[in-house]
Amino acid sequence: MHKIVLIRHGESIWNKENRFTGWTDVDLTEKGLAEASAAGRLLKQEGFAFDIAYTSVLKRAIKTLWTVLEEMDRMWIPVHHSWRLNERHYGALQGLNKAETAARHGEEQVLVWRRAYDIPPPPLDADDPRMEAGNPRYADLAAGELPRTECLKDTVERFLPYWHETIAPTVKSGKNVIIAAHGNSLRALIKYLDDVSDADIVGLNIPTAQPLVYELDADLKPIRHYYLGDAAAIEAAMQAVANQGKAKQA
Amino acid sequence: MHKIVLIRHGESIWNKENRFTGWTDVDLTEKGLAEASAAGRLLKQEGFAFDIAYTSVLKRAIKTLWTVLEEMDRMWIPVHHSWRLNERHYGALQGLNKAETAARHGEEQVLVWRRAYDIPPPPLDADDPRMEAGNPRYADLAAGELPRTECLKDTVERFLPYWHETIAPTVKSGKNVIIAAHGNSLRALIKYLDDVSDADIVGLNIPTAQPLVYELDADLKPIRHYYLGDAAAIEAAMQAVANQGKAKQA
Repeated sequence: MHKIVLIRHGESIWNKENRFTGWTDVDLTEKGLAEASAAGRLLKQEGFAFDIAYTSVLKRAIKTLWTVLEEMDRMWIPVHHSWRLNERHYGALQGLNKAETAARHGEEQVLVWRRAYDIPPPPLDADDPRMEAGNPRYADLAAGELPRTECLKDTVERFLPYWHETIAPTVKSGKNVIIAAHGNSLRALIKYLDDVSDADIVGLNIPTAQPLVYELDADLKPIRHYYLGDAAAIEAAMQAVANQGKAKQA
Repeated sequence: MHKIVLIRHGESIWNKENRFTGWTDVDLTEKGLAEASAAGRLLKQEGFAFDIAYTSVLKRAIKTLWTVLEEMDRMWIPVHHSWRLNERHYGALQGLNKAETAARHGEEQVLVWRRAYDIPPPPLDADDPRMEAGNPRYADLAAGELPRTECLKDTVERFLPYWHETIAPTVKSGKNVIIAAHGNSLRALIKYLDDVSDADIVGLNIPTAQPLVYELDADLKPIRHYYLGDAAAIEAAMQAVANQGKAKQA
């Protein structure tokens, strides 16, 4: 039996400002850092001890991971970064306030962009300053591989090769793995592991910085999964995620 | 021409308390963190941009590196950890206050243990709680490879294989490398690079968290080296290191 831990980054500045973030490299808030610390203490207290970690190339996930590892006294383990664990690319919505976008386009259109499995938001123009063409962390991507927008289906398709080629063999080798990533890259993994339908995966809300444990059999089929920690707090955190993108009350 | 940057960790709690640290995994002080931040800002301002980093398995070096990378917005680069970059193991002196040890054994004996190239301090007993036998970060070491004490010669001998097999080929491949390590593991590298004599290397004082740049030719022979930043501040920091181990005035 294998056990892996998934953790979504703590609250980021743009989570707090209710903006579409995507690949924008925003930092954690103080609250986000505190959430990550609490997750690390909880994991340590529950006896977890990771041998290896996987994360994205975005600082809100990396800093969440580093904070967890510091609390667990495992700062010395190997950490692997991949753009394939990045958040879903939000195209031309990146940087826009979710409530403002909802007020302008209607809550339903925003919900489509956020929650339809295969409908991407409008793409960035090739010369948009938000394109990451010159960013050295994406230098290894093949021409045309750099997204201009993504629907969740796209995120699943670019995440899964990394799971199959890199993470899954490591889990099978018996290593204790933690994956620190983003709402949609974790959805991509959960969709695959639990064989969740296209319709259902978009309604799955993953709270920030709550360790999610998956117990897997020898073939990496899930046996069960559960969040560590206080159930009521986790429910409230999920609801907070679900409420994003609604127009603010005047 | 290649350029590598060496950085000794910022002030640690035991640096401040004037204790022999060695492999004891003590944290940075607030001052140590601030030193690391300043080093990161300086490196960024001077146009450095690292592709890959090497550090020890001790948190004072790791946290110095993480802080530098955060300031430089390079948190996403690969970081490799090795016990071969650890500080020199200080044997039975680990944990002792340097000034107290000096008062008990005499400044000269302490200076021998600190500064003789090939005379190690008394070894730890095999059952000493300070032995790291059960520590998972050393699980990969072969039987008998875990040191019970080290002289600088021992540190050189266990550091150099990592340089030759791992770091040097990476530098030659054209990657921009930073090495965040410890006073004696950096002495080991400098002794090799600059072919410093056994007698002279023990007198070389490396200040905490001051980026030390080595420019190397195609065969990795040094062309020149220099500290970044304010020369007077670096001289004062070197002098502070040199003064450790003297008995405190009453």
